[in-house]
Parts: sequence; C-alpha cells; structure tokens
Amino acid sequence: MHAPRSSVVSAVTCAAACDALTIIDQTQLPLALVELSLTELHEMVEAIQSLRVRGAPAIGVAGAIGLAVIATRAALASPATFDAAVAQAADALRSARPTAVNLAWAVDRVLAAGQVGGAAPGIRAGAMRDEAIAICNDDVAMCERIGMHGATLLRGGMRVLTHCNAGALAPAGIGTALAPVYTLHARGDAITVFADETRPLLQGARLTAWELDRAGIPVTLLTDGMAASVMRDGRIDAVLVGADRIAANGDVADKIGTYGLAVLALHHGIPFYVLAPTSTLDPQAPNGASMPIEMRDASEVRMHAGVQTAPGTVAVHNPAFDVTPAALVSAIVTDAGVFHPPYHFTD
Amino acid sequence: MHAPRSSVVSAVTCAAACDALTIIDQTQLPLALVELSLTELHEMVEAIQSLRVRGAPAIGVAGAIGLAVIATRAALASPATFDAAVAQAADALRSARPTAVNLAWAVDRVLAAGQVGGAAPGIRAGAMRDEAIAICNDDVAMCERIGMHGATLLRGGMRVLTHCNAGALAPAGIGTALAPVYTLHARGDAITVFADETRPLLQGARLTAWELDRAGIPVTLLTDGMAASVMRDGRIDAVLVGADRIAANGDVADKIGTYGLAVLALHHGIPFYVLAPTSTLDPQAPNGASMPIEMRDASEVRMHAGVQTAPGTVAVHNPAFDVTPAALVSAIVTDAGVFHPPYHFTD
Repeated sequence: MHAPRSSVVSAVTCAAACDALTIIDQTQLPLALVELSLTELHEMVEAIQSLRVRGAPAIGVAGAIGLAVIATRAALASPATFDAAVAQAADALRSARPTAVNLAWAVDRVLAAGQVGGAAPGIRAGAMRDEAIAICNDDVAMCERIGMHGATLLRGGMRVLTHCNAGALAPAGIGTALAPVYTLHARGDAITVFADETRPLLQGARLTAWELDRAGIPVTLLTDGMAASVMRDGRIDAVLVGADRIAANGDVADKIGTYGLAVLALHHGIPFYVLAPTSTLDPQAPNGASMPIEMRDASEVRMHAGVQTAPGTVAVHNPAFDVTPAALVSAIVTDAGVFHPPYHFTD
Repeated sequence: MHAPRSSVVSAVTCAAACDALTIIDQTQLPLALVELSLTELHEMVEAIQSLRVRGAPAIGVAGAIGLAVIATRAALASPATFDAAVAQAADALRSARPTAVNLAWAVDRVLAAGQVGGAAPGIRAGAMRDEAIAICNDDVAMCERIGMHGATLLRGGMRVLTHCNAGALAPAGIGTALAPVYTLHARGDAITVFADETRPLLQGARLTAWELDRAGIPVTLLTDGMAASVMRDGRIDAVLVGADRIAANGDVADKIGTYGLAVLALHHGIPFYVLAPTSTLDPQAPNGASMPIEMRDASEVRMHAGVQTAPGTVAVHNPAFDVTPAALVSAIVTDAGVFHPPYHFTD
C-alpha cells in the first residue's frame, strides 16, 4: 500500500549514513529538479532560510539530519571540540526560521540523544544519527498513515480539489492532504486532482502541479477564482487541504483561500476534508479565535516573480492564513485516524 | 452629481474635433500613465488588438472615433478617394477584435451616418464626427446613470468588494460596477473598495487598484483567495461587479471568479449587485446555459508577466467567464434603473 516512491519526490531524503543533508531545491521548481547534498552548516542554514526546503515537517527533518551530519563529521575530534561544534550547529539550525516549531523541536530531540554521559564523540554522534533517521522515518510513516486513513474517505475515479502544497514536497514522506491521492494511485485506483495555483506565492502552480505531474497523477491547474466554477460544473467530488494548526474544537488555520473553498464546498454539497499530522493539533487553542494569523508583506501581492503588477503604493491585505470553522469541515484526518464532527481534541 | 473628472482617467476621451483618437495605453499601467493620440489607421488597429484600449464600451467608442478621425482627414479628397479611405478604415477597425460586438456596432453606426446621398465628403465627414461624438457622450451618460441608480443601493461609509475592472478604464465614462463608487465619492460620501487582483490577467491589480488610487478613493488590493476571509471579518458591506452578458432570467456571465464571490456573499449575508449597460442584456438568451463561455489559452495560467510559474506541460482549465445564477444576484443595475428579482428582461 506504499506509493511508487521512484516517481514521488519528497522534500528531504532519509539516508542512514548521514554524510550529507539531501534536499530538493524548491526555489528551482518547476523549471528544474535540483537535488542538493549539503555538508556545511552555512549551506544548511541558508537552505532553510531561503525556502529551498519548506513545509513544517520537512524543515524539522532537515534540521535533525543537518545536526547529525555535523556531529558525524566532528566525531573524530576531541570531546571539547565535538561539543563546541554540535552546540554551534544546533544554535544556528534552530534559529534559521525561529517561528517554525517543528525545527526547534527536531533539533533539540537530536541534541538530547547525543547527551550520553561520559561516552566518546563517536558513540554520541551515532546516537544522534539514529535519532535523526528516526525522526525522518517517523515523518515518512506519518504520511503513509494519513494516506491510509484518508483513502477510506475516497474511491477510485474521484476528482479532488486541493489548495497550496501539502504534498510530498512538504514533508519527508508522501504528504498530508495529498497522501491519500498517492495511496489510491499506488493501488491502481484512478484519481484526478484540480490544483488551485494559490496566490500570492503560487505553491499550487509551482509545487503541487509539478509533483503530481511528475508522479503521473492527472492534475489540472486552476487560478484560485476558478474553483467555484468547476464545483458548479459537477467536476469535484471532494476537497482535500492541509492545516497549519487545528484548535481543540476543530477550527482549522490553513493557507489563505482555504476558508473560501470550505464555504463553496458546503454550497455545492461537496465533502471538505482536512488532513494533517497529529502534531498540528493544538488542544491549548480552544477555537480559531485564539490562533494568531500572520500578516505578510504587501510586496508579495503587489509583485510577482520580480515583476510589479499593481501600483507600488496601493494598500494591500495579505494574511498568510485564514480560519475555517469546524462546522464546515466534514472530517479531520491525522496519522491517528479519521475524526468526524463534533471535534474535541485533547492532550 | 458628476465625479471629479480631473482625477478619474477614462479609457477614451470624447473630443469634438476628431483630429486624433485619444486613449490611455492600458498595457503601460500601473507603471506609467501614457496617453496616446492616434492619427493613423494602423496605430488604431494595433491599439485595439494589443489591448492598449480594452473594455467592451471603450472599444466601441474607440472604433467610432477612430473612423471619424480617418474620415475627417480624407474629407478634402475626391468623393471616390474619400469613399475608399472610409471603407478601408471601417473594415480594418471592425475586424481588429472580431468578437467584440460593441466594436462592429459602433463602426457601422458611424459609417451609416456618413451615407448622406450626394453630399460632399466634408459634409459626410461632419456627420460621422457628430455620430462618433454622440456615441462617446452616450457612453459617458450611460455610466453616470448607472452611478446614480447604483448609488441608491449604497450609503456613505460603506466598504465594497469588486472584481476585475469595470471602472473608468473600461468605458469612456466613470465605469459600470465602479460608477456608484465615483458617484458617492463625488458627493463627498466616504466609500472604501476592496479589489480582487483577478487572476489570470490581473485587471484588478493593474487597473482597478490604479484608477481608484489615483482618484483618491481608498482601495485595498486582495488576492482572489482572500475575499472570503475579509467577508468573514465583517469588512464588506456589498459586492459590486460588472457583466459581459445578462440572460433574460437574470443569469450573469462575468469575469471568472464572479460566481464564487456571489456564493460567498450569500453565505455571509452580503448583498451582491451586478451593474452593466442596457446593451449587456441579452433577452435572446433565456438563461445562463445558453451563454457560451470562452476558453482561453493555458499559457495565461502557466505564465505570469513573462515568467513561467507552473510546469510547462501541466493541464490548465482557463475559462474567461463564469455564470452566476440569478438567484444569487440581489439586484441588477443598468442605465435604465435598478431591477430586483425575479428578473424578466425582454426586448
């Protein structure tokens, strides 16, 4: 029940040797598929900062493997030199994107695995490698489980609509929102995807369309304003989206544009499914009102790919996310299973 | 009750002398305001073909004035030379955009006005000038009337959402969807506009944001996927859109993305108004199903401003328009007045 991994390109590769951090340079997509093998700390930090690797799960895995690579190479040095190199690398990686919760969590987990009292650097680096690979493999397994659970909501021949990129380019595995698409495809069931381009940063056009096209899954690209029209034409059987955070009551924060799709799905009687790792659940947030919405720079809307498309001074509203109320969510799928309303997520 | 024309830039200028066709070069917006005075036939044809002047009403006016300019200059020649020049110009202008109904209609109206049996070319050219200026002035008056009728649905302090460009850059006057915005602004009432950027061709970002900003009307630019979120935030009091064709039953064909806004407006209890000239009504089309939807080239979605943003081979769905069922339209405003449902438009 595994997707055909040969054609599915994930953001990060889980390689047991930990002699390099291997990622896809997503800033080159869709024009070129460039795999980077990063061995130097400054290269890893730059790759995370400049979004060569993106997607919360993938960033965490990249930080974990990156730290293990640095530790492995420092393992022949003295304990003091090893400690200094590892501490410096952990600090630099952790702060590469300070707001990414997964990144600090994964780096700290690898760091802690290396704290083996009195052990030689070689032993400690080995423990760190094991932990980094475990984090990476856990991510792959998490995606497979989301795919398996999500697939129970779908059937062969369906046509699904997705938004942004919650595919294989977001984690180390086969994705979250798109995991069941890969699961159905791998078992030979036909499935067709309509992908919103997802302005302003066009993750749907640049990443989702690219990864599905490459995997041989039929995908049709839409501008965001076309989703309603294809729903009315009777061409969509389900909407599949990811999530950045899910509140205790099931309210979902996800890429801007998700909420509008949920309203349109309700109007057209189309099920609206949210698929995300258990780590996305935030039981501390009682509902959507307690989830802060990041506002981003106006230039993302006024410009595109370096080309100015609006007056340089015009006011812009550019929230990165919106909140979809739980009442519009037909089911929430995590690696732990399928949840139906009413939602009550607890620690 | 006229808008402050000094700050409102319309697509075409109505100038009685007809010594040149004066347009705004919309391909230069929003980076530069370039006014073109076209005197040669090939320049006029090129301007229409390459969308330097766009918007159904504006294209018609441009064709009418263009033909009058050519006729005026040919008026000193022999009757035979005059006839040949006018016929050649009419053919070239009429076919510059063969699917634009307004263009052929306006060119033929000016041509017919010059068919004064036995009159000298000077007399005939004068009649053609009068007709072209009448068409232009009628367009300006049509916009003013839409503004006056539409303003009865609004009040000072309102915040409206619009899509695409149905403002002053679409006709010779103050626009259709945006006409009541200019009307309120001119009488000193505060009005705020949220403008969808309107992918794929970004008329909202390039044109609507520019013209409102220049007119001193507060405007905030959104990507298309953000409209739902600002509605949910309680920041929109009405939606104002134009129309490309309106069926007898009130179904509305308009720029792709309009239908989704209508569904979202219904969900949020926000009135959804369509504003368009009487000439947009098509009583021959009983409903939306009888209005053909133009499909446009995939490159518009795969590329943006010359930059490739999606895989070059990915399938694309690119309808130019969608159909909003009459049931979602709170009122239809034309130069003839405000129409409420149920709609029954007849010849």
